[in-house]
Amino acid sequence: MSRREGRSERIRARTARQELAAPFTIRRIGFVSLIDEAAVAIIERNADRILDEIGMEFRGDAETLDLFRKHGARVDGQRVRFDPGWCRDKIKTAPRIFTQHARNPARSVQIGGEAQVYCPSFGPPFVHDMEKGRRYATIGDFQAITKLHHSLAAVNHSGGVVVEPVDLPVPVRHLHMAHAHLTLNDKPFMGAVTAPERARDTIEMCRLAMGADFVDQNCVLYSVVNTNAPLVMDETMLWALKEYAKAGQCTVVSPFVLGGAMSPVSIAATLAQVLAEVLASVALIQLIRPGAPAAFGTFFSPISLKTGAPTFGTPEGTQFQMCAKTLADRLGLPFHSVGALTASKVPDAQAGYESQAQLMGATMAGVNFIIHATGCLEGLLTTGYEKIVMDADRCSAMMRFVQGVDFSEAAQAMEAFQEVPPGGHFLGATHTRENFETAFWMGEMSDNGTYEQWSAEGALWEHERAALRVKKLLADYQQPAMDVAIRDSLDDFVARRTREIEGGKP
Amino acid sequence: MSRREGRSERIRARTARQELAAPFTIRRIGFVSLIDEAAVAIIERNADRILDEIGMEFRGDAETLDLFRKHGARVDGQRVRFDPGWCRDKIKTAPRIFTQHARNPARSVQIGGEAQVYCPSFGPPFVHDMEKGRRYATIGDFQAITKLHHSLAAVNHSGGVVVEPVDLPVPVRHLHMAHAHLTLNDKPFMGAVTAPERARDTIEMCRLAMGADFVDQNCVLYSVVNTNAPLVMDETMLWALKEYAKAGQCTVVSPFVLGGAMSPVSIAATLAQVLAEVLASVALIQLIRPGAPAAFGTFFSPISLKTGAPTFGTPEGTQFQMCAKTLADRLGLPFHSVGALTASKVPDAQAGYESQAQLMGATMAGVNFIIHATGCLEGLLTTGYEKIVMDADRCSAMMRFVQGVDFSEAAQAMEAFQEVPPGGHFLGATHTRENFETAFWMGEMSDNGTYEQWSAEGALWEHERAALRVKKLLADYQQPAMDVAIRDSLDDFVARRTREIEGGKP
Repeated sequence: MSRREGRSERIRARTARQELAAPFTIRRIGFVSLIDEAAVAIIERNADRILDEIGMEFRGDAETLDLFRKHGARVDGQRVRFDPGWCRDKIKTAPRIFTQHARNPARSVQIGGEAQVYCPSFGPPFVHDMEKGRRYATIGDFQAITKLHHSLAAVNHSGGVVVEPVDLPVPVRHLHMAHAHLTLNDKPFMGAVTAPERARDTIEMCRLAMGADFVDQNCVLYSVVNTNAPLVMDETMLWALKEYAKAGQCTVVSPFVLGGAMSPVSIAATLAQVLAEVLASVALIQLIRPGAPAAFGTFFSPISLKTGAPTFGTPEGTQFQMCAKTLADRLGLPFHSVGALTASKVPDAQAGYESQAQLMGATMAGVNFIIHATGCLEGLLTTGYEKIVMDADRCSAMMRFVQGVDFSEAAQAMEAFQEVPPGGHFLGATHTRENFETAFWMGEMSDNGTYEQWSAEGALWEHERAALRVKKLLADYQQPAMDVAIRDSLDDFVARRTREIEGGKP
Repeated sequence: MSRREGRSERIRARTARQELAAPFTIRRIGFVSLIDEAAVAIIERNADRILDEIGMEFRGDAETLDLFRKHGARVDGQRVRFDPGWCRDKIKTAPRIFTQHARNPARSVQIGGEAQVYCPSFGPPFVHDMEKGRRYATIGDFQAITKLHHSLAAVNHSGGVVVEPVDLPVPVRHLHMAHAHLTLNDKPFMGAVTAPERARDTIEMCRLAMGADFVDQNCVLYSVVNTNAPLVMDETMLWALKEYAKAGQCTVVSPFVLGGAMSPVSIAATLAQVLAEVLASVALIQLIRPGAPAAFGTFFSPISLKTGAPTFGTPEGTQFQMCAKTLADRLGLPFHSVGALTASKVPDAQAGYESQAQLMGATMAGVNFIIHATGCLEGLLTTGYEKIVMDADRCSAMMRFVQGVDFSEAAQAMEAFQEVPPGGHFLGATHTRENFETAFWMGEMSDNGTYEQWSAEGALWEHERAALRVKKLLADYQQPAMDVAIRDSLDDFVARRTREIEGGKP
């Protein structure tokens, strides 16, 4: 090994250790808000008016309606109306900051406050890679993607439905997804929200993996419940919300809004609608179990006036987040929103521009939990293998960004100016030699070399380098350790529940 | 024409008219700073110490040294040292805000204050397109690129050396570049900085095009002078600075810094060095002609510790801008810095991620004049035809972003909630019908349609769609009107000066 290679190895090892040490990022800079106090007052008043005059529908669950009625909300059929301030009062019991525990305690994440967590995409039925193109996802894809996220230091979370394993029957998918999250990755993950028994199964698997007492007393699942905007929560989401709230697990209420279709065609109106939906839904969580962790989520995409399709990486997407975060702060709730979204079908420049815009906007806004931070293509219909590693590199840059600028005496380096005369260079200066290894962020995916080097190495575009990196990460993947008895109990649980579900038991 | 097509046409026409109406963007949101008052005080004190203890070298020009000496700076050989506060006092005569006039008054731009101007890349010797690949640029490329920028509403400026026309002899290139800027585009442009007689030629061509009196009394050229960091201004740049300052034209002092090589390997130290260089250089401009317009420029790229090459779209690049802008504000100078930079050799995802990161960072920082906002590839060694139209689309998004969020009563749309019940949709609501055409930003380059539509249209990646758009823009290009006598005078000037220069006269 040459001296140069030796140095390069040292640097890599040191960087890897540093990254492992941080399961999430603590922000050291402020967040960017685009809403002032006067506008906050307007939006809050409008949300109160919507809840008072229009109300929200909670569908298909008498227990929920009874609970609302019992605590003084005005229930009319499935429509629930709220006096101004009622919801805000009820949600005061929700924690400002909490920990979502991972199976590996070193991977547990803080939700809320100054913490930022980057999480994979959720929900795509398709996968894409450069070799095989776009196709329906399988449980094999789910597992491979979960391994990738385990290996990528800039991804803090294993996510939820990272892709839909469409080769498995719907009623058992959740078992295999939770099994993959628990055995192939040791970062925290998300619970199923498609049926109450699936939520219970996921909680039960966490009890097997992490201990029943621990799970009963701590948040180990973080699950996303979407309202059906405008102003409806359907039966399926409602039941999932109830299961997780009863178990003291976190529920994020995230109105899914295509602006102009599912909300009025403006940011100001959509903010009021989203705030109304979150207020009512988080109030319900707190009625079910006061103190249960919850978060304020948003998914806002303006629709294209040309095609009616959702758009991503737009100015309005970022502006919306930079207002909603302030509304969440006012409620004392952690804020959850979207990251590297794109409408592009492939890992091209459009994917890069749009994903970076949305990810950087979310980071500047101070989103605490950034979902869809890796992999998104085609507006979440597809997850791209190459896109995952490309996005993760940008997450790593964002993590560095929010740590702010070092103005310490060491960083000021005034002695370097005494050492290097005008017109000289600093490469050999003492300060440079002592600090260059960690001074600036170093990505894994960008090619910064000369045109000649790049050409000699095959003139690869970023998605081609990413395809190679995916292969290498999967080849080098090491499964995190797990006690054999725990592993057996998880395997047995999946086998037993599969037999029961196939036999007709829910 | 179907009803649907009719609507689509109307929308396009309206959008185009709106864009034409705005030669630059007035920011309605604050800017993002990462430096607080205490850190500002540290950086300003360190810059003063550098100027006092180390000083700056002004090379090859006795007149400059005499001028500094006469006004009380300490001159020792070519090294000039400054008492703390001396430079800051001298630059007080520079205007906070000024107008750079274009040949077409409707295209004139405000520099400074709340204005944001997006300008093409400067300096690449190569061009790239998907058809012919990378090659040395010619005057034909220069002209084609200048036509493209004339046609793109989101580009506010025609730039300077948009590419180096290497097929022309160096001593006459500036004539043909200024001729292209003045005849093929009617937006403002930049002056040559490679020799004093070339600066004089450019000013003379502006006098022919815009009237001698007008040019003598107004700023019509905006020219970028790079220091040779650390702490040197060379003869060539110094002479250009002097010519433009004497003529009352704007000079931007922009230290070109590869962090870790041309400055210490930290943001804090580089800020102090850059501030010192700008202070001394802008003081010189004000000594030459008090009140001459000037700006505080930065070009900061951290070098890669792996390759020694410059990197772009990094966290530090943005952090640096978000500190330097505040230093410029403290001096009352407009702030000029870099936009959509990338190290990528091709218009791939890396180009998208990096360019968007740097462009969005510059926009958030509140950079008044964003240079290199379109076309950059390979760290400014190349301009890409496709990259120009891709970047311009993102500039358009940024312009919309800085206009902030509308919280007016109309935007609150409270009546829409009365009209649409929970679970309904807003597509047909009165508020939507009245506002959807202008409510959200609409790009030209992103494909937001379905996978099936996209496949049916050829499954084109963004750079492939961009190649088609470049062809269409050039085919549809219409040369801006110019008085025949003016055009003749410009042609004659270029012919005469070419004969003189080829005959040996500078």
